Amino acid sequence: MKSMVTTQLENGRQTEVLLADDLKDLSAHLGEYGRLVLWVFDTNTVKLFKQLPPSHVVLESGESAKNFSSLERILSSALDEGLARDGRIIGFGGGVVCDMSAFAASVYMRGCRLTLVPTTLLAMVDASLGGKAAIDFQGMKNMVGSFYPASEVLISIDTLRTLNEKEFLNGLAEVIKHALLSQDEELYKFLLMRKNEILSRDPKTLAALVELSLKVKQWYIEQDPLETLGIRQSLNLGHTFGHALESSSHYLMWGHGACVAWGTCRALEAGVVLGVTDKAYASGATKLFKSFGYDIEYRIGRGDWIEYRDHLLKDKKKVDGNVRFVLLEKQGSTILMPLDLQLIQHLVIAKPIF
Amino acid sequence: MKSMVTTQLENGRQTEVLLADDLKDLSAHLGEYGRLVLWVFDTNTVKLFKQLPPSHVVLESGESAKNFSSLERILSSALDEGLARDGRIIGFGGGVVCDMSAFAASVYMRGCRLTLVPTTLLAMVDASLGGKAAIDFQGMKNMVGSFYPASEVLISIDTLRTLNEKEFLNGLAEVIKHALLSQDEELYKFLLMRKNEILSRDPKTLAALVELSLKVKQWYIEQDPLETLGIRQSLNLGHTFGHALESSSHYLMWGHGACVAWGTCRALEAGVVLGVTDKAYASGATKLFKSFGYDIEYRIGRGDWIEYRDHLLKDKKKVDGNVRFVLLEKQGSTILMPLDLQLIQHLVIAKPIF
Repeated sequence: MKSMVTTQLENGRQTEVLLADDLKDLSAHLGEYGRLVLWVFDTNTVKLFKQLPPSHVVLESGESAKNFSSLERILSSALDEGLARDGRIIGFGGGVVCDMSAFAASVYMRGCRLTLVPTTLLAMVDASLGGKAAIDFQGMKNMVGSFYPASEVLISIDTLRTLNEKEFLNGLAEVIKHALLSQDEELYKFLLMRKNEILSRDPKTLAALVELSLKVKQWYIEQDPLETLGIRQSLNLGHTFGHALESSSHYLMWGHGACVAWGTCRALEAGVVLGVTDKAYASGATKLFKSFGYDIEYRIGRGDWIEYRDHLLKDKKKVDGNVRFVLLEKQGSTILMPLDLQLIQHLVIAKPIF
Repeated sequence: MKSMVTTQLENGRQTEVLLADDLKDLSAHLGEYGRLVLWVFDTNTVKLFKQLPPSHVVLESGESAKNFSSLERILSSALDEGLARDGRIIGFGGGVVCDMSAFAASVYMRGCRLTLVPTTLLAMVDASLGGKAAIDFQGMKNMVGSFYPASEVLISIDTLRTLNEKEFLNGLAEVIKHALLSQDEELYKFLLMRKNEILSRDPKTLAALVELSLKVKQWYIEQDPLETLGIRQSLNLGHTFGHALESSSHYLMWGHGACVAWGTCRALEAGVVLGVTDKAYASGATKLFKSFGYDIEYRIGRGDWIEYRDHLLKDKKKVDGNVRFVLLEKQGSTILMPLDLQLIQHLVIAKPIF
């Protein structure tokens, strides 16, 4: 185990991200917690263990498990196992397992201990750090949840080896988004220069990629842990456009990351139209997404606009009834603003403008 | 509206408790929030209004409504009404409505605004201040919840006029408990001297009683808002004994406050047996409870011990597997300690010792 990132949060809480040599190293670390733990897997990650820990829950894999029923299953198992407030929930899986475990830990006896072991690239660079936990509710993504940072996040790069291509690209979209939000160009250049090692999943390259990406996220959340100051909302770049696509297609079409890649390019276009974003920068960023294989030129059908718009208008980031979008002024600098519905419609159903 | 108590909590948050002249004064204050609100009533409190606010949910009255299904109903209505994070949930009712509204507000979009209007004495002196929200889960009281202080608590003493006797005594038990925990004897003396005005529900007397009681609670929660320092746990005096009675009798027998009165007397007895509590003080406090009509001499049947014990052992306040009880060293000074099961059995099923 080596320390990767330590994030300072409100009330003196912190999240320590540790890099394990491999799954065995990681299991040895977790074994030290003894018996007052409950593991949460999904039907994929449960296969990574030959011998399962005695107290565990296995959720269905996939976004559809992010619901009240999964929450109740985890809470019920924790109660059956006799966990008290000083007991620990260990979420071992992708974003859904991390979100469900964190939400359950936040409400179990009003808060028990939490370790997250993200096993997908998306969960490593996004869901595991920053304390946001949520479930989907009535078809709306992440509508119900809490802020509850894990005390530790354990990363074992070898879990990325067996990830399917779609899942891997889901995570990479958030990494590219972080590259645009970074205060320096290190991650952006890393993505340009090391594309082949990244796509061939060279372990050392991926460890460096995850660390660079986490450091960008860390910068934003340390300044605004509860998303009350308008700083952390920058991390939602591409998410308002993207979530509405995810929700209105009922989570069936693309993964979260692919929607974020698509949504980020829509936000870049909106910025160009409004004179907020430099056209050359937007064009370069769009090319970077394309070079990793994202279908950023996709547009929704005219008949799907109403449903898309309705999901957009239910976005959590409304203030006084207006949905505010994150636009990019330049590398690492964002601005929040409402967008005209006609412009949005033009961007999501018209032909690409560059 | 006049300010009663302002409690400072973590992260610069605060809860302001305001005393309204009457329900009309209170409604006028709430009317200023406009349309981005959702009211939560129960089947009793909904009758207090001739004209209902357009956006509202009505829960069944009683402890059985403190469940996931009520939570989902509130969240679903909030979503239907288009509430965003800057929307407000107004909980108008007793402890169940306050708890459900606060828990819902804490998880809706990871936290929206919250006003509580406690309409029972118990909710005024307990549930509305301090940010503890919870639901019962699998027969276990307050097993799932969060810390989420209301930004404002509005108290209208006229809602106490129609409270039935049992409900009124439920609240009074917490007031007497606060009298024992207070750093001075003002509340204790007030209870001794003003018994008749309290029981005849003289409005001015009740307003003074609520204020004195809230100030005791305030003292504890300001020092330990998240109950992590062992100070706030003093407020659980009587609750470990009492909750187990409440849970093991399936919430059917007595109200919460009556169980707390009973549990506090058991804790006083435990303190006397262990030489922690002064016998004369314990005896005086027990008489105070008795003088207000509590059945503190009740003992559980021998055949109910196993179920009682099982509920006791699932208490949230376990550390390293041991349930810790709040005992009273003297007025305003407590100590947390585990108790031997044999002693507990002796106290809850044997004859009274004084």
